[in-house]
Amino acid sequence: MTENLPEPEARGERDVAMSQLLGIRTSIDNIDAALIFLLAERFKFTQQVGQLKASHGLPPTDPEREKTQIARLRSLAVSANLDPAFAEKWFNFVVAEVIQHHTQTASKMSTEQGLQPN
Amino acid sequence: MTENLPEPEARGERDVAMSQLLGIRTSIDNIDAALIFLLAERFKFTQQVGQLKASHGLPPTDPEREKTQIARLRSLAVSANLDPAFAEKWFNFVVAEVIQHHTQTASKMSTEQGLQPN
Repeated sequence: MTENLPEPEARGERDVAMSQLLGIRTSIDNIDAALIFLLAERFKFTQQVGQLKASHGLPPTDPEREKTQIARLRSLAVSANLDPAFAEKWFNFVVAEVIQHHTQTASKMSTEQGLQPN
Repeated sequence: MTENLPEPEARGERDVAMSQLLGIRTSIDNIDAALIFLLAERFKFTQQVGQLKASHGLPPTDPEREKTQIARLRSLAVSANLDPAFAEKWFNFVVAEVIQHHTQTASKMSTEQGLQPN
């Protein structure tokens, strides 16, 4: 990309930019660690939900609950200046994983009880 | 799913389960709000990265940096008892969005400067 550098002093400017970049990256790394630990905590709770649902014959998905969650998260995203469409896409990505876990839990528990999975 | 209820007293048990479910859901909602605000903060930083990269002709992607991030997040996931494969999939999902932003920023800044986007 050196052909894009407009000035002779660009090398020094680029070093400053790289130094700024490294500083920002340490913040991103800290945030990512926090996100991973929060996601782990979220999955601990959804695993409890999965076990409750499976042992009481409740369906793994709950479209009404998900609709409410999406509306709330979109609204929180707007207040945080985050693209609400991304927030929804991100939520759907996480929920797809959770539902997969719930279905596996239900199937496993049904097999253990000699029942067919729904 | 009522045909899966094994005992006559299952209705009462199911009410208890629903009450437990509602309690867990408030925790999930709190965690989701924290996740959204952290993601918003992460995007603020990656926007700064995107602008730095674009204005200094640095490429929007950095495969070496991403490799290091994935290895670190997988290791953090293991210590948090989160599936490391999910952590990696989740990270790739977020990074795909970030790279899209960076490419748009680079393209916009190149157009403004009369340069071709890379």
